[in-house]
Amino acid sequence: MARILYDLAGADPRLRFSPYCWRTKLALAHKGLSAETIPWRFSDKDAIAFSGQGRVPVLVDGERTVFDSWRIAEYLEDAYPDRPSLFGGGVGRGVARFLNDWADQVLHGGLIRLVAADILSVLHERDRAYFRQSREARFGTTLESFCADRPDRVAGFRRSLAPLRATLAAQPYLAGAAPAYPDYIVFGSFQWARCVSAFEVLEAGDPVAAWRDRLLAAFDGLAGSAPAA
Amino acid sequence: MARILYDLAGADPRLRFSPYCWRTKLALAHKGLSAETIPWRFSDKDAIAFSGQGRVPVLVDGERTVFDSWRIAEYLEDAYPDRPSLFGGGVGRGVARFLNDWADQVLHGGLIRLVAADILSVLHERDRAYFRQSREARFGTTLESFCADRPDRVAGFRRSLAPLRATLAAQPYLAGAAPAYPDYIVFGSFQWARCVSAFEVLEAGDPVAAWRDRLLAAFDGLAGSAPAA
Repeated sequence: MARILYDLAGADPRLRFSPYCWRTKLALAHKGLSAETIPWRFSDKDAIAFSGQGRVPVLVDGERTVFDSWRIAEYLEDAYPDRPSLFGGGVGRGVARFLNDWADQVLHGGLIRLVAADILSVLHERDRAYFRQSREARFGTTLESFCADRPDRVAGFRRSLAPLRATLAAQPYLAGAAPAYPDYIVFGSFQWARCVSAFEVLEAGDPVAAWRDRLLAAFDGLAGSAPAA
Repeated sequence: MARILYDLAGADPRLRFSPYCWRTKLALAHKGLSAETIPWRFSDKDAIAFSGQGRVPVLVDGERTVFDSWRIAEYLEDAYPDRPSLFGGGVGRGVARFLNDWADQVLHGGLIRLVAADILSVLHERDRAYFRQSREARFGTTLESFCADRPDRVAGFRRSLAPLRATLAAQPYLAGAAPAYPDYIVFGSFQWARCVSAFEVLEAGDPVAAWRDRLLAAFDGLAGSAPAA
């Protein structure tokens, strides 16, 4: 049974940078499920129109089509209950949703101010005008001015990670002794930053950086060996 | 076997306002464990010196003494594995620690700027000088000036709850379908604010307020029927 994942790609089709697609790829690896990843660009709306919406990740698992990284994680957990658990039960799933919302809003909101302008340089030529126009409308300014003060802003971003840092100073993974979906949620955002920008968002010696290194090495270096900016 | 909890109290010994003690009281209720709560004031350091430190909650469970709300939750979960689970397993426990760190830093840090000055009026007379001195040293200003701009500050506080709001708009409890320790962590801070101040920190209609109402009613109104400012 074919399993296919539509995965956001840059000009280099091997550069896969979507934080949400990384969550899904690590969830698939955690479940021990293989999938063919299809490079997709923002302008390929037609290619995923069958899913009823216009964003990736889109997972096609035999007869089933599922989109949205959170819904895909829930689908994988429920469809493959005998594989290693992503959530470890109902409480884990419940709190993971809070982490998902925190990552989407706080973590992602901080990172985008550090790397948004760099994304442009990794995009396929046919995505660039769309990306600039849609993001500049959202940010209310140019990409360049949105990210202009990142050397000053990075300290505040690092401070915003204080709860994450405290947790990862006390235990090796967000999910406890071993990684699970909570880790993939948060790691996806750091992997996104790493894939699109050479700017180092963490300080050396930060427990968050040590945790990120462990996840870069997970699943035989699935994320760490992926092409990055 | 006697089970005793040292519980921070105000001038009115029935007013129990510590966010950390509320976490523990709800955890005990969740486990179906009774405990005699002993009203304790900041100046009663001698009464808990046997625990080797000077803060509450301190739980004495037969031969065992445990302090710190997080450590007490872990103790109860491990010592009473046949009772309803606080964490629902290792992943839930892992992510709950992140929520604990988020609540202590972000949530608590926001609430203290709204209610710190009100705490003074609920304290026992013999605690007031200690509280003012220790907190003013920590905040670097008077209690009154620390909280002077709360009508302006409350909007930013409410915005900081965006991830919590998104989660609680999607599911009834942080732990999912039913409450568990992740809910008690976050609720403890709101109950603290409610116990020391009549200032309403949430807007009517906020999903966070509806969730707070559900927890005020939980365990036969354990928190909701408790004396408050």
